[in-house]
Amino acid sequence: MTRRIAVIGGGLIGRAWTLVFARAGCEVRLWDPDAKVRAHALDELAETCRQSGDDPSSIAQVTICADMATAVDRVEWVQENGPEKLEIKREIYAELDRLTGSKTILASSSSALVASRFAEGLAGRARILVAHPVNPPHVIPVVELCPGPDTAPEVMDRAEALMRDVAQVPVRLTREIDGFVLNRLQAVVLAESLRLIEEGIVTPQGLDDTICHGLGRRWTLLGPMATINLNAPGGVKDYLDRYGPTMARLSDSAARGEAFTERAAEIVAADLPAPSQVQELSRQRDTRLAELGRFLRDND
Amino acid sequence: MTRRIAVIGGGLIGRAWTLVFARAGCEVRLWDPDAKVRAHALDELAETCRQSGDDPSSIAQVTICADMATAVDRVEWVQENGPEKLEIKREIYAELDRLTGSKTILASSSSALVASRFAEGLAGRARILVAHPVNPPHVIPVVELCPGPDTAPEVMDRAEALMRDVAQVPVRLTREIDGFVLNRLQAVVLAESLRLIEEGIVTPQGLDDTICHGLGRRWTLLGPMATINLNAPGGVKDYLDRYGPTMARLSDSAARGEAFTERAAEIVAADLPAPSQVQELSRQRDTRLAELGRFLRDND
Repeated sequence: MTRRIAVIGGGLIGRAWTLVFARAGCEVRLWDPDAKVRAHALDELAETCRQSGDDPSSIAQVTICADMATAVDRVEWVQENGPEKLEIKREIYAELDRLTGSKTILASSSSALVASRFAEGLAGRARILVAHPVNPPHVIPVVELCPGPDTAPEVMDRAEALMRDVAQVPVRLTREIDGFVLNRLQAVVLAESLRLIEEGIVTPQGLDDTICHGLGRRWTLLGPMATINLNAPGGVKDYLDRYGPTMARLSDSAARGEAFTERAAEIVAADLPAPSQVQELSRQRDTRLAELGRFLRDND
Repeated sequence: MTRRIAVIGGGLIGRAWTLVFARAGCEVRLWDPDAKVRAHALDELAETCRQSGDDPSSIAQVTICADMATAVDRVEWVQENGPEKLEIKREIYAELDRLTGSKTILASSSSALVASRFAEGLAGRARILVAHPVNPPHVIPVVELCPGPDTAPEVMDRAEALMRDVAQVPVRLTREIDGFVLNRLQAVVLAESLRLIEEGIVTPQGLDDTICHGLGRRWTLLGPMATINLNAPGGVKDYLDRYGPTMARLSDSAARGEAFTERAAEIVAADLPAPSQVQELSRQRDTRLAELGRFLRDND
């Protein structure tokens, strides 16, 4: 039986999710409150396919809906991509809870708000969770699944299975935490990076090269834990015995929130492509990410 | 004119460096104090080529030397890969300083010791620096070039040019800092990762998936600064205006050295391949890194 999925919000993330579900064979219903976004959504999806090398024929699986009620009618899963504003999210979830049956899972792409903030008090809070993608999800497969305190374990099981079925890589968190996992790791890297740059130890380009042509390559194949497991003859415990004290010392002296200064931002901005190039470079990034994804899949 | 390079130390890192220089057309002289290591070095190099897909014919460029003096005779560059023990490094550099002319650059693969520690007091300290690779350098191109307080700027210029000529990616630091750049960034990621794992928020596998199928992929193509430059319509300053306060809050609450606990090590070890598999998995990693490197070079 064809799975039926609703995507709420037709911006960049909503369209990328639409493609994730459609290319996996789901029937996708896309709704956005803005009539203009709805009118251009199919053309934008075709353009997204062109950039990522995805087969545009899967767009035939997508229906643009004129209202939310039609979009979410008898769907298995709602992927919500509304603005990261608490009041708006609360309104959307009250509406989604009212419009959907008890079997429908309501998943938010929220990166900043945890589910308890917008699910609180709703009858359907056991079927609400965060399914946080990396931008954009059609070329980066990881999805953080973060339950609220009332999310049912069975809902988390179904969420994990669905994400695997549509070829994403679900990472299941056991409870809410500010920033989930991915942005917590990004935050510590950004803080220390900005500090090293502002202190003049390294240029922004040099910092990027260190990750891009160094750690990032290892981490693309292995992840930080699998990486250190191979960096000592006796595996991860041997590594932490040998290098743990050094790593602890380095993290003790690492930068924190104070590193996010105006001056660091100025230095980085001066060394990077101008804002006028952001759109074109993002397109190129997505094309290259799609190619990298295919390479990694074929060479696994 | 063929460049002449000496590599001191024939372990994993020394052999990888040997291959880096040899495949770039340099004449490489390899010396190790252990006769057994010297006896097997060429066979080991052939095996390394087999794993990485490098052309083994470049091994013809390598001469195994029976003593340090022969190895470093009239070379342009010495890449030293001795043990990370201060006393041993000091002895090696005193010897290298005595044996080489004023034009020879002495570069250490040291990850833990900065150049001032072992170059102090030597006549040749202006031509001594750290050239810290990522293990192993023949499949990961980044090299951190870190001067000591007495390293001549002209030496740093030549070091940077040579590294580019042998197809590595040099990252030039302006002054000494504990851990250089790469291990400082690795340290903060490890600290926060171990904390999230020990607190049960995520499994080691989930943590690795978050990087491997998420941040790591972006960072392989772009680096952290270029990444955030594309994550807001107005570029990096727009990003830091919008998300800087959130990222600052997340890094303020991030783990530090206290996260390197015995218990975290146990949890990670239990979820990862056993130490008996480390050697075979390392070989597979290097093969895959070499393939990824070729993919990235061909798709740049």
